[in-house]
Amino acid sequence: MHFEVLSTDIISRARRGRLTTAHGVIETPVFMPVGTQGTVKATTPSELLEVGAQVILGNTYHLFLRPGLEVIQHCGGLHKFMGWDRPILTDSGGFQVFSLSKLRRITEEGVHFNSHIDGAPCFLSPELSMQVQQTLGSDIVMAFDECPPYPSEYEYTATSLERTLRWAYRCRAWGEKRRNGTHPLLFAIVQGGIYHDLREKSARELVSLDFDGYAVGGVSVGEPEPEMMRAIDNSEPFLPQDKPRYAMGLGTPPQLVEMVARGIDMFDCVLPTRLARNGTAFTATGTMNLKNATYRTDLRPIEEGCSCSTCRSFARAYIRHLVKAEEILGLRLITIHNLHFYLNLTKQIRAALEAGTFARFREHFVANYVRYEPQVSERESEVEP
Amino acid sequence: MHFEVLSTDIISRARRGRLTTAHGVIETPVFMPVGTQGTVKATTPSELLEVGAQVILGNTYHLFLRPGLEVIQHCGGLHKFMGWDRPILTDSGGFQVFSLSKLRRITEEGVHFNSHIDGAPCFLSPELSMQVQQTLGSDIVMAFDECPPYPSEYEYTATSLERTLRWAYRCRAWGEKRRNGTHPLLFAIVQGGIYHDLREKSARELVSLDFDGYAVGGVSVGEPEPEMMRAIDNSEPFLPQDKPRYAMGLGTPPQLVEMVARGIDMFDCVLPTRLARNGTAFTATGTMNLKNATYRTDLRPIEEGCSCSTCRSFARAYIRHLVKAEEILGLRLITIHNLHFYLNLTKQIRAALEAGTFARFREHFVANYVRYEPQVSERESEVEP
Repeated sequence: MHFEVLSTDIISRARRGRLTTAHGVIETPVFMPVGTQGTVKATTPSELLEVGAQVILGNTYHLFLRPGLEVIQHCGGLHKFMGWDRPILTDSGGFQVFSLSKLRRITEEGVHFNSHIDGAPCFLSPELSMQVQQTLGSDIVMAFDECPPYPSEYEYTATSLERTLRWAYRCRAWGEKRRNGTHPLLFAIVQGGIYHDLREKSARELVSLDFDGYAVGGVSVGEPEPEMMRAIDNSEPFLPQDKPRYAMGLGTPPQLVEMVARGIDMFDCVLPTRLARNGTAFTATGTMNLKNATYRTDLRPIEEGCSCSTCRSFARAYIRHLVKAEEILGLRLITIHNLHFYLNLTKQIRAALEAGTFARFREHFVANYVRYEPQVSERESEVEP
Repeated sequence: MHFEVLSTDIISRARRGRLTTAHGVIETPVFMPVGTQGTVKATTPSELLEVGAQVILGNTYHLFLRPGLEVIQHCGGLHKFMGWDRPILTDSGGFQVFSLSKLRRITEEGVHFNSHIDGAPCFLSPELSMQVQQTLGSDIVMAFDECPPYPSEYEYTATSLERTLRWAYRCRAWGEKRRNGTHPLLFAIVQGGIYHDLREKSARELVSLDFDGYAVGGVSVGEPEPEMMRAIDNSEPFLPQDKPRYAMGLGTPPQLVEMVARGIDMFDCVLPTRLARNGTAFTATGTMNLKNATYRTDLRPIEEGCSCSTCRSFARAYIRHLVKAEEILGLRLITIHNLHFYLNLTKQIRAALEAGTFARFREHFVANYVRYEPQVSERESEVEP
């Protein structure tokens, strides 16, 4: 078995688990930093290890377009290319095809689109997405899905879902036939939008195909939080206990805690890296905009007691100066702090689950955190540095 | 004595020296990375130590305008503010006032100008420049000078030089009166443009005032190399043997070697950091533009045999991808390599001087290097990250 539930919470649906991949073991609940273009923005692999990253995410769509498979294959796969020898999860490219590129046509076979880089016509299908992810050398491969915009009409969502289920079946079949000794894990994605019957249908049918894990898709950070939690609540009960569950592209720190309580094991989100580049840091009491004049002569670290390399060495006043002066070091220092914050949060969650104190941790954390509501979709669809 | 000449070359005017400052000893010839806004662009202080930086440069003009003296003073000086406890040399602000700001008026008293950030009216004088540099906590303070554009008419250059000499005298007087236990070293700047008689006059008069070191100013990387060397040759013979000589804002790697041979001990230049942000790396055989398609699948490091952290971990193919995708990690990795290259070059020069093999080193290095001629002035006048 590649996934083991080590313990479960008495009060909530939270689980402490362990996922084994070709490049090592992942302790769950886990947060996965987003490495869209073969780099978690502004960081080195050794910095990722230092902040406690166990697994990172690579974006199939971006890497497929640039540098292209030929380059990555020549360099020995994504791990060797970027110098990261721990697990990598790759998405299927579906989300970015629908959100980033100029979409040309969806057919039963796959999706015709134009590259966002140079407009070149491209094509992705379930089989091609599997092949690309296998060539990248991914440890956890995601099934190719259609990701309808939020909110979508019932009828469109239902039709799209049917096609995504047929695509999932093709991904499963491709995986069965092709995967060899390297044996990546294959996860399917529950869709169905805001409709509970479609979520249930999606989950049940995917589970009948017996994937290695299940993601909840079609929700992004920009959506109202009740919708986000409802999508989880409408999907999770139909997923098997002995497989990992992954909430794609989510969320804020308290949302992570709430989703863990709803039985989610894995997360990825661009918030810590993207907000860092905007001068915003995460703390246990909420986000902090370091451009604020309040910090002009503030000698304290971003977060007192924080053990990250930024907080051990630099004061808010200095980081504020760097951000105001648009110096790269400013966003570097906040990126490190933010990733450490997210990774440390999941570490604390794991410790609380082990100690049987998760309910208290959850209540305390969520109460202390001043909620941050991003205005736009924060799921990884960016191309700018 | 704060400066000691340990040995001199038999053939050229090159010297191996040692400069003692309040924050430690500097082995010369030395290259000083440029930290314009309180950070050597894209690097942390610990990375600077790792690449072998002994001393860095801070720009008085930039720091005076942003974050301003009050902030840096509150934070305990520039060393503490930026987390660098080795020597810092600060320029006087003169060069940037004349190149970056909207100049309003030069008077005998000082210079009225408008901030390049917000247009606010500002004033700098010899005494104010001294005071600002002392407040920053600089270890090596530069006298406030007027830096006429290249080329300037004889008459203008002569008039400007007279004023710069009177300003140097005022800096000297201010230093005598005010400098206390912290005792920064005070360097004067030889001006005189392309006119050998003015260079001689400038050097002789400054030497009569007995500064702690002498810079050759008014030359920038964009100028024809013969002019650059002529400015050194027209100034150096009139400078005392027992004081350090500093070529401000210069130059390419072979130019550094040639200036060492002409008796220069100290250098600063934005080329390694600025070209890195443009995707260009330095090697012993010349510059390498990593955007070039040649490197698409090149598994070699930037420079084979290089011991920097970039070359130890990353291939050209990966760095090229990062540069093409405009990822911050790309410019970070090249910045580290380029700084290491410049610092390692001066280390090799010092070793050659110690071993008595400098003539051979010089000949070999200059012959192997394919000259790079930047098209525009590369002296630190940038504000963009």
